[in-house]
Amino acid sequence: MDLQKEKLVIIGSGPAGWTAAIYGARADLKPLVFAGRAAGKDLLPGGQLMLTTEVENFPGFPEGIDGPEIMGRFFRQALRFGTRVVTEEGAKNQDDLDANYGLYQTFQNVQSIDLSERPYKIVGDNGFTVYADAVIIATGAKANWLGLENEMRLAQQGGGVSACAVCDGALPIFRDQEVGVVGGGDSAIEEASYLAKFASKVHIFVRRNSFRASKAMQARVLNNPKYRIHWNTEVVDVLGDASVEGVLLKRNDQSEQGADQLESLSLRGLFIAIGHTPNTGFLEEQLPSDQNGYLQLPNPGFTATGVEGVYAAGDVADPYYRQAITAAGMGAKAAIEAERFLAEVA
Amino acid sequence: MDLQKEKLVIIGSGPAGWTAAIYGARADLKPLVFAGRAAGKDLLPGGQLMLTTEVENFPGFPEGIDGPEIMGRFFRQALRFGTRVVTEEGAKNQDDLDANYGLYQTFQNVQSIDLSERPYKIVGDNGFTVYADAVIIATGAKANWLGLENEMRLAQQGGGVSACAVCDGALPIFRDQEVGVVGGGDSAIEEASYLAKFASKVHIFVRRNSFRASKAMQARVLNNPKYRIHWNTEVVDVLGDASVEGVLLKRNDQSEQGADQLESLSLRGLFIAIGHTPNTGFLEEQLPSDQNGYLQLPNPGFTATGVEGVYAAGDVADPYYRQAITAAGMGAKAAIEAERFLAEVA
Repeated sequence: MDLQKEKLVIIGSGPAGWTAAIYGARADLKPLVFAGRAAGKDLLPGGQLMLTTEVENFPGFPEGIDGPEIMGRFFRQALRFGTRVVTEEGAKNQDDLDANYGLYQTFQNVQSIDLSERPYKIVGDNGFTVYADAVIIATGAKANWLGLENEMRLAQQGGGVSACAVCDGALPIFRDQEVGVVGGGDSAIEEASYLAKFASKVHIFVRRNSFRASKAMQARVLNNPKYRIHWNTEVVDVLGDASVEGVLLKRNDQSEQGADQLESLSLRGLFIAIGHTPNTGFLEEQLPSDQNGYLQLPNPGFTATGVEGVYAAGDVADPYYRQAITAAGMGAKAAIEAERFLAEVA
Repeated sequence: MDLQKEKLVIIGSGPAGWTAAIYGARADLKPLVFAGRAAGKDLLPGGQLMLTTEVENFPGFPEGIDGPEIMGRFFRQALRFGTRVVTEEGAKNQDDLDANYGLYQTFQNVQSIDLSERPYKIVGDNGFTVYADAVIIATGAKANWLGLENEMRLAQQGGGVSACAVCDGALPIFRDQEVGVVGGGDSAIEEASYLAKFASKVHIFVRRNSFRASKAMQARVLNNPKYRIHWNTEVVDVLGDASVEGVLLKRNDQSEQGADQLESLSLRGLFIAIGHTPNTGFLEEQLPSDQNGYLQLPNPGFTATGVEGVYAAGDVADPYYRQAITAAGMGAKAAIEAERFLAEVA
């Protein structure tokens, strides 16, 4: 087992993590990043943008840019200034890594962290252990599921239930078929419009009678025959054994009339887009969080967590904005705060 | 005089202003931007990045990018989604504007604003007047000067005193000459390293015995024969009638020995890099600010100013981080907050 002492360890590899790494590296802190699968086990490192086809609102890219492409750019920029990444074989720098996310399958997550004394002990999935004087937590958030038995079974067997249209939407099983999206926010509409490239029709199931999505997003799907929006509608079961054959719907606006009637709809795929949960499990409640699991920052506007030398940046600590650009800004803040802290204690 | 009602007016055209415009435009708010010379009278619209040759720490640009180039990208991205800009001839959209900052000389500043009742009245330099339900203030900050009589005189007559190496450093008068930079922060070293491309030697005058600059920045000039660093040194006068011939220096570490001796040094240029002052004059103290003029936000982490529908983003409200990426994050926040406010009141 390796044992080593670091100035700055960054956990997470979305916009917040890599921006913290860029700033930390330029401040000569030689940050070490646990970059593994920030947004969930099935994903590449790089956070939720890895699931986004076209990012239109990250400033600096007037024609838009693919999520994986911009995250590759963040990654290369962090490496350029001396950031290192934990792989199966230990800490690797730019010279050891393919700048296009090569070796990402060996990138390590954090299994546990001990914040009871500084330097803080951090253990990776593979047992790789480091001690660090400063830690930036930028682990992001992951998709929520409806929690239906058939939903999980079909998702796990690749049977047409997914929380990631970009990952799975182009699969042959969905081509020229009707598919459904559950949710009413920006990401639900993003999923739907991605699926519309492949599917014959996209049904959007919205529990309430309006979208939470921005007007610009809504305009994509309203009054567009490619989409059918089911207002006041819950998906209460997924039908099909080997693969999705349909969904069971409950129309909430009829239930007052004594209904509780369920209605089935034939579909070949179901995409869940109902929000996210911050990735804080590895912390084992060593840092305070709110009811949804978001880390709470005692001095809002700063990224210090209240534990000396420990900072949080990005979606893991942001229940309100949750944008790539705001996460990146928080990452820069966290690195600046960590650098000033280390200059004091070193 | 034009009279018109807007949903969202954005004042300022740095990273905060344009990012607010991108988000505001995508939320279908059709923002109107007063983009004129955000960082001072002598500058282009685009804020302080317009004075930076190479931006290395804005995430997404692994090889670095010129300040004016990235600001042009922000600008085009804002226009793409429906942002309009106030020119001498009124509000103009993408179709009326050269996407490479054409017409910028006619872009308007805000002369005055009345925040006493909503919709708020905003008057441009040319008298162009609009009313807006929401306002984002993103006017940035401008360079400080030493305040010496000869400094201002020589600066105003283009005699070799400047607060902008990128604007003036390449002028023939500085080629293969010795020049000086006043200041000990990141921007002072940025100025110095820019000047080193042209000058024979760059003197850096630091009042204290250490830099405030980051270690990465310091590494550029320490142990490099192109630079001479004068610790504990103040510039107390600039010498020369038509143009800079030298400076008068006071060595602070000798003054205890009864010295107060001044020392002259022959130079052909002097660049002032001693910090910035937020651009809030047009507000006439309608919003609370701290002792340095930075706008104070009552709920840190959010951009609301305390006046309903009025938000502040970027360096004008950030005495601590003052980075392009943090300013951009604040701009996105301000637009998201403004959009939610307008959805409530509209």
